Amino acid sequence: MLAAIEAGGTKFVCAVGDHQFNIIDRTSFPTTYPEETMAKIIGFFDAYDEIEAMGIGSFGPIGINQHASNYGYITSTPKVKWRNYNFLGEMKKHYQFPIGWTTDVNAACLGEYHLGSGKDKHSCIYLTVGTGVGGGAIFNGRFIEGFGHAEMGHIILRNHSADPFQGVCPYHGNCLEGLASGPAIEKRVGVKAEELDKNHQVWEMIGHYLAQALLNYTLILRPERIILGGGVMNQSKVLTCVKKEFALMLAGYVDTPEVDEYIVLPSLGNNAGITGGLILAHQLL
Amino acid sequence: MLAAIEAGGTKFVCAVGDHQFNIIDRTSFPTTYPEETMAKIIGFFDAYDEIEAMGIGSFGPIGINQHASNYGYITSTPKVKWRNYNFLGEMKKHYQFPIGWTTDVNAACLGEYHLGSGKDKHSCIYLTVGTGVGGGAIFNGRFIEGFGHAEMGHIILRNHSADPFQGVCPYHGNCLEGLASGPAIEKRVGVKAEELDKNHQVWEMIGHYLAQALLNYTLILRPERIILGGGVMNQSKVLTCVKKEFALMLAGYVDTPEVDEYIVLPSLGNNAGITGGLILAHQLL
Ligand SMILES: Nc1ncnc2c1ncn2[C@@H]1O[C@H](COP(=O)(O)OP(=O)(O)O)[C@@H](O)[C@H]1O
Ligand SMILES: Nc1ncnc2c1ncn2[C@@H]1O[C@H](COP(=O)(O)OP(=O)(O)O)[C@@H](O)[C@H]1O
Ligand SMILES: [Zn+2]
Ligand SMILES: [Zn+2]
Repeated sequence: MLAAIEAGGTKFVCAVGDHQFNIIDRTSFPTTYPEETMAKIIGFFDAYDEIEAMGIGSFGPIGINQHASNYGYITSTPKVKWRNYNFLGEMKKHYQFPIGWTTDVNAACLGEYHLGSGKDKHSCIYLTVGTGVGGGAIFNGRFIEGFGHAEMGHIILRNHSADPFQGVCPYHGNCLEGLASGPAIEKRVGVKAEELDKNHQVWEMIGHYLAQALLNYTLILRPERIILGGGVMNQSKVLTCVKKEFALMLAGYVDTPEVDEYIVLPSLGNNAGITGGLILAHQLL
Repeated sequence: MLAAIEAGGTKFVCAVGDHQFNIIDRTSFPTTYPEETMAKIIGFFDAYDEIEAMGIGSFGPIGINQHASNYGYITSTPKVKWRNYNFLGEMKKHYQFPIGWTTDVNAACLGEYHLGSGKDKHSCIYLTVGTGVGGGAIFNGRFIEGFGHAEMGHIILRNHSADPFQGVCPYHGNCLEGLASGPAIEKRVGVKAEELDKNHQVWEMIGHYLAQALLNYTLILRPERIILGGGVMNQSKVLTCVKKEFALMLAGYVDTPEVDEYIVLPSLGNNAGITGGLILAHQLL
């Protein structure tokens, strides 16, 4: 039996699954403070005594360098109670089985790579466009990471000529997340993104910024597929706009798969992250 | 005995070396047209009958997908005579030994990764800032590539507020290469980059643009080291400006190695590419 945790800034999902990554049982609860959350996690998993390994995909930033003192920690998160919290260390106090540790977006990427929209490819990027913008990349089965994990939601973009918006990223203002996340849309137009009309011009701008980011990712990584998830992608107009703008900006400069094959939605839906956690666990066996 | 070719847009370098990557013999000649160049290549290597494998680092774009019909080709290069030229195929007609095939910048990256400025790291990026701007990345011994090879010199940047320059990239105008290559410097100021005073304000701008690019690479890839080569880096002011601007823009947002350890010059000098070619050859044995 495999175990997985999707540790999100808003809610935690815990699940156990079989070796085919079918979910046998799951639970979820709001992210409050570490002690309370940890008690719920342990309450859930303690009911299963056949767990062989666990995979955790966590909100971050997190420490992923096994040789660094902050390995396994949630580090400089804006969520004060979770800052410098030794999440993996705490889990290891309770469990003897091996535990894999990566970011929430890497876990979702892993799920989609093996069983979802990336399953026939050797490389893919998964980008979530929600409360924040975050991404993970897998090439030949391995995450792209080095000194730390990717933070591809915070790249610098060129401002759209008709967009004076300063952005909402607390660190950078108008980085990708600052310009194209759900809260950025809400701040621009004064209405929650999910309540905004399909024909509002802001969707073209969001499409433009995402396309710019995708173009840079493409030139740097040349993935075979890019998967766009997160709440903002529920507005179907966004995908249409991204593809149109991407094709315009790319202008055939480098080869990519045909745009409808290249820029796609996730196919595991809400299960991408937790499935990725199970896969991460399985890799430890 | 190993063989290597560094196929540049201006000149070709051919070399043979031993298994410790010492260069035993080398030659170089201007890049003219394929038949003439090929005759010179073959003339050089035919003198050695103990070659076990060869590595080629070529100017591009090139076809690197082994399953695609353009594998081994120089593809859409502005050099008309070399466009859609089956370079690897032509070499394979003459030689029975295995031949590795990658971009010129990937080969230089491989040399620096194993024997130069990246040799104690698991991941690095090599960026050349010369007539063009191009880059390669290696993570855990493998090139970052997927549907094609990286074209990281052409990413989109935000214009510097004091820089109205439109850029010289024939494809994009003001992409990184369009703004920060040697020809971009010359076009801006009307003097060859190597003749320009150290105190000219353009160096700060070049530093700014390169720092912006390095910031995006950092957020997407998180390499342990970035190596900056190419003719423009001969102006020592550039490295100083890049590091200063990079630290300012990063503003501690993600961890990187200390900037003097992180952004460095190559240590193999002009031999990076040809050494990388020998390493590529060795990997085939
Ligand atoms: N149908 C929708 N259209 C556009 N935006 C949406 C829609 N539904 C949710 N959102 C936005 O997505 C964001 C939440 O993203 P989500 O991925 O669900 O959560 P999180 O990023 O917190 O994990 C919110 O900013 C919300 O406004
Ligand atoms: N000392 C120097 N300072 C600044 N720029 C230089 C210097 N030397 C050469 N360059 C510029 O570098 C470019 C050539 O780069 P190089 O890497 O040598 O060749 P290539 O990119 O063609 O392989 C030219 O545009 C030249 O103006
Ligand atoms: Zn940001
Ligand atoms: Zn360009």
